Amino acid sequence: MIRVAINGYGTIGKRVADAVAAQPDMTVVGVSKTRPSHEAYVAKQRGYPLYIADLAKKGDFERAGIPVAGDVEDMLKAADIVVDATPGGVGKKNRALYEKHGVKAIWQGGEDHEVAGFSFNSDCNFPDAVNRSFTRVVSCNTTGLCRIIKAMDREFGVKNVRAVMVRRGGDPGDIKRGPIDAVVLNPVTIPSHHGPDVQTVLPHVNIVTLAMIVPVTMMHMHVVQMDLEKTPTREQVIQIIERHPRMGLVRKSTGITSTAELKEYAMDLGRARSDLWENGIFEESVSVIGNELYLFQAIHQEADVVVENIDAIRAMTGTVTDAAKSIEMTNKALGFTPI
Amino acid sequence: MIRVAINGYGTIGKRVADAVAAQPDMTVVGVSKTRPSHEAYVAKQRGYPLYIADLAKKGDFERAGIPVAGDVEDMLKAADIVVDATPGGVGKKNRALYEKHGVKAIWQGGEDHEVAGFSFNSDCNFPDAVNRSFTRVVSCNTTGLCRIIKAMDREFGVKNVRAVMVRRGGDPGDIKRGPIDAVVLNPVTIPSHHGPDVQTVLPHVNIVTLAMIVPVTMMHMHVVQMDLEKTPTREQVIQIIERHPRMGLVRKSTGITSTAELKEYAMDLGRARSDLWENGIFEESVSVIGNELYLFQAIHQEADVVVENIDAIRAMTGTVTDAAKSIEMTNKALGFTPI
Amino acid sequence: MIRVAINGYGTIGKRVADAVAAQPDMTVVGVSKTRPSHEAYVAKQRGYPLYIADLAKKGDFERAGIPVAGDVEDMLKAADIVVDATPGGVGKKNRALYEKHGVKAIWQGGEDHEVAGFSFNSDCNFPDAVNRSFTRVVSCNTTGLCRIIKAMDREFGVKNVRAVMVRRGGDPGDIKRGPIDAVVLNPVTIPSHHGPDVQTVLPHVNIVTLAMIVPVTMMHMHVVQMDLEKTPTREQVIQIIERHPRMGLVRKSTGITSTAELKEYAMDLGRARSDLWENGIFEESVSVIGNELYLFQAIHQEADVVVENIDAIRAMTGTVTDAAKSIEMTNKALGFTPI
Amino acid sequence: MIRVAINGYGTIGKRVADAVAAQPDMTVVGVSKTRPSHEAYVAKQRGYPLYIADLAKKGDFERAGIPVAGDVEDMLKAADIVVDATPGGVGKKNRALYEKHGVKAIWQGGEDHEVAGFSFNSDCNFPDAVNRSFTRVVSCNTTGLCRIIKAMDREFGVKNVRAVMVRRGGDPGDIKRGPIDAVVLNPVTIPSHHGPDVQTVLPHVNIVTLAMIVPVTMMHMHVVQMDLEKTPTREQVIQIIERHPRMGLVRKSTGITSTAELKEYAMDLGRARSDLWENGIFEESVSVIGNELYLFQAIHQEADVVVENIDAIRAMTGTVTDAAKSIEMTNKALGFTPI
Repeated sequence: MIRVAINGYGTIGKRVADAVAAQPDMTVVGVSKTRPSHEAYVAKQRGYPLYIADLAKKGDFERAGIPVAGDVEDMLKAADIVVDATPGGVGKKNRALYEKHGVKAIWQGGEDHEVAGFSFNSDCNFPDAVNRSFTRVVSCNTTGLCRIIKAMDREFGVKNVRAVMVRRGGDPGDIKRGPIDAVVLNPVTIPSHHGPDVQTVLPHVNIVTLAMIVPVTMMHMHVVQMDLEKTPTREQVIQIIERHPRMGLVRKSTGITSTAELKEYAMDLGRARSDLWENGIFEESVSVIGNELYLFQAIHQEADVVVENIDAIRAMTGTVTDAAKSIEMTNKALGFTPI
Repeated sequence: MIRVAINGYGTIGKRVADAVAAQPDMTVVGVSKTRPSHEAYVAKQRGYPLYIADLAKKGDFERAGIPVAGDVEDMLKAADIVVDATPGGVGKKNRALYEKHGVKAIWQGGEDHEVAGFSFNSDCNFPDAVNRSFTRVVSCNTTGLCRIIKAMDREFGVKNVRAVMVRRGGDPGDIKRGPIDAVVLNPVTIPSHHGPDVQTVLPHVNIVTLAMIVPVTMMHMHVVQMDLEKTPTREQVIQIIERHPRMGLVRKSTGITSTAELKEYAMDLGRARSDLWENGIFEESVSVIGNELYLFQAIHQEADVVVENIDAIRAMTGTVTDAAKSIEMTNKALGFTPI
Repeated sequence: MIRVAINGYGTIGKRVADAVAAQPDMTVVGVSKTRPSHEAYVAKQRGYPLYIADLAKKGDFERAGIPVAGDVEDMLKAADIVVDATPGGVGKKNRALYEKHGVKAIWQGGEDHEVAGFSFNSDCNFPDAVNRSFTRVVSCNTTGLCRIIKAMDREFGVKNVRAVMVRRGGDPGDIKRGPIDAVVLNPVTIPSHHGPDVQTVLPHVNIVTLAMIVPVTMMHMHVVQMDLEKTPTREQVIQIIERHPRMGLVRKSTGITSTAELKEYAMDLGRARSDLWENGIFEESVSVIGNELYLFQAIHQEADVVVENIDAIRAMTGTVTDAAKSIEMTNKALGFTPI
Repeated sequence: MIRVAINGYGTIGKRVADAVAAQPDMTVVGVSKTRPSHEAYVAKQRGYPLYIADLAKKGDFERAGIPVAGDVEDMLKAADIVVDATPGGVGKKNRALYEKHGVKAIWQGGEDHEVAGFSFNSDCNFPDAVNRSFTRVVSCNTTGLCRIIKAMDREFGVKNVRAVMVRRGGDPGDIKRGPIDAVVLNPVTIPSHHGPDVQTVLPHVNIVTLAMIVPVTMMHMHVVQMDLEKTPTREQVIQIIERHPRMGLVRKSTGITSTAELKEYAMDLGRARSDLWENGIFEESVSVIGNELYLFQAIHQEADVVVENIDAIRAMTGTVTDAAKSIEMTNKALGFTPI
């Protein structure tokens, strides 16, 4: 059993912890919090040992009825690998600690590529992660782009990618962030950083991305357009999506035309936390015009990277060295219901 | 086993179906849809026989890969009781059909009291529902008000109730309804209809309600103020809430201050569809000022009536005649995790 | 003085009326409403004679203190030209009435091209509108696209246009329409109708458009990408925008990065109804990558077509036959403050 | 002419500046900004001398084409009185500076009562402000409450007030603040600070307030309930509102039921910045039940305090000592169109 610690038990961390716990070859040795909160109660309910950043706050947790197992260093001692899901920019500061304890580490896309020197996507570069000490799983948007670009490039050759990302303002439980009634260019400049971020995984892709933020909490929506070397039929593209383990086709017959309805569907299917781990590609949108492919894909910002973290754990610990095998194990353990 | 049909497999119907399926003494004999949709796929996944309003549309369902068991009349023939969860105002038209088939029926709060001549709340008037043919479960807001008013009236005597309801504009999956950036008085006139609706269950309560709609999808928020006969301590009120099977205390130590965080907590606790079946009463808000009680309570519009429907089924079929026993059975089967 | 009637005194109609009233060569002979409303009071305040669709409702208006000048046919008798600003799809039914009264007519973009057989944009095809009886001013989005495409095509030659439109869900005063928390693909299929609509004005443009709706009330945001024949410098593009009478540059030094801040700026500048009649093109976004131009432009859905209607009136009445002259007159009368 | 400086040219400051400029007995000697922004361009357009906090940033302004008149101390030297409209909590730190320059000062409701030792509302305590050096104009919500409470108390005697405030999350141009999809209790505890704040103006009022925040940008909505000494008729209450110079009746015949439609109406009436300086009280909501008065009132958070600042200037400079006279002058200069 791979012993996994999760440093930062928030939006991503709590999902990674549950996904680890669901795998047959992994166990959660601990999760960490800085302050008592509803999530600390959830960790207790799940039975995850809770470690805290600052032992001086132990009393605060205990008064709230939450037992504390130790501090973060104690947690690292018990782990083979740590998934750092601390807020963006904080993870970098933890690297020295992970090195000190000789524990392998995975960072999220809120950190720069340089934090690990290697950026990961299960379908794109799993073999390069095998036995690595440090890896960065790219952000939700970059993950979603890498999946569809790689899948098309493999079959048809991708010359150029142009993508527009309409991003959620804050996660559903985030009450501070806006906007309330605005489309915010983020950034105003073109291209956005997402293009170069895709290139940390797929260096040879020619890509221009643009991004804006709108007042929604559920999922990002991507417009993806690619100039292809070979011209596919629409049916070929749809077939590739249907067979891809990390892409799902939002069928016309479901009547779903929005992020909200798609989230409702994931909820109704009994998905844990209503999560959509795969790219939600709208069947009706898939269009081939000349040698150009257009489509809309919904990316669940809280979920799609979770499964990538699980695969990265297997690769880095060298316990599984075949991408397809790890992807299959991860998906099966989570109960990927076809959408 | 009580054989239950659900006529209308939408926001409420799909939750009632799953709640019925979870009970040890009930079974879902069928659910109905008018059109193929993502929810029809969910019925198929769950294994609920799907009946349709108009058999002429059978081909549409079958082409979408969804088998059809028959029409609504066929479904009624297989049932002891039907839960009508069709859109507000439609249910009334179905009464003749239910009478024709001699099936007992439960309507939701979108229908008028007169549809059944009896309005139900588990904690308030369960005994009056025993062996009834027709019952209306009051709306989500009325249910939430009845619970807290009855609980306080029982212990302290309620002289007057003033309540302000800040309502969600549409459910999470509803993409048509607004508003986007407005507070809408609904109605502008005072009092709103909710006060009289509470009186269909608790006829002697003196109550004035006001209501408005805001651009949120998750939960209604109630301000409840009561003039009491006996002046309680704050601690007494909190204790009553803690012990009530259909009220939950949102503790200060969770750090939760909003509907969104409360929904996130219900999700993290693994609740089916992240549902909050109980009134979510904010611990810190519970205040006794003179002989007046003030508090904030969150009401999950999609969920709180679901458990009341289950209890009504037991009462009406005469299989359980004690409210407390049915409430306990319902809660246990759903896995009410304490919040 | 050109005598102008406005049939439909709503979001667009009330703006066209005020714009007409501000011109030195036009006068408002009447506006029409179907029901008393806040806008009827505004018409009274402005001194516009109010005509109503159905004289049977005259009493309703008069009881509300709003004098009625007659019915719509009476209004048409007093007019040289009518601007039809009735809801989309209704305008078509009015054509026979306009023909009967021999009055020239302008429809809005909510109607199909066929209603008039000619679709108008001031900068693109003003000469073709001279002395016409019937004209359709294209929609706000199409107007915004036509302006930037024509301006670039004139100087550099446009080979292909790809545009993504992130649209507002409802106007600020519209409390019915959603979504509240969703990105809605509208349509899911690609391309959207906007591309063909641009071609009603600019038939030879090769264009693919995509559209979605988000929960905002203020302005649409366009991502525009063009493949150009000649490669411009970024500065050349900016200069063309700066000099264009219907495009405004949102300068980096204003710090504006969103639709909301841009609307606030238009308000602070004292613009009537905070209206932005020109394309709001974000200076920092203007990017030339290879032979491709990228930019973000904000389109104020309530405002940009208003000035086009004014120019169409001049062309159709043959009172001004030069586009540039009419555009200058229109802009000057409205007090186009440079943004 | 009273020489007025405005320290802080933001949401409130820019409105106060324009209101001062519109008065016959006042002049704007300067406004201040800390950074170049769209509002600095607006100050330039209006012709207000612009002073800056830190002269080291003069170059930044000048490069943006905005002339700088000096620093804040220079501005104070030219003024008889300064309106401090800096962000909440900052104003307090400026008091020493105002004392040093012997300039009278007005703070906004974001500061505590203690900053000035006197809290102001035109209709409640104008005489107490005459010739004062320091005054705090209470916040938008407190201003709105004081107006209606005082008006009812004067005629009928107010025993108890219970008010619920449904507050906007951020101003229209504010793109950072949320929530996006939540009702946030702010605070969770009862009562909120608004009750005690009303008592800084009306010390003998018995009041309990509750507050929450919702995802809207336009106006707060208040539910106001009062227990009265004498029982009025509904018509008497309406008449008082109609005659009050700072309250407006939102008539049933306008069809307005929401904040958004009310803002649209203020815009259509040609109000500067679409501002609603008066309480917008919904006619249909005014209800007398027993000896209790209920009503809904909309409070435009950016606007209602602006006119109070103008009156405070007159009182503090001793140029007008009669409240009614100042209120009339202020309203007339701004062109209060009856709503």
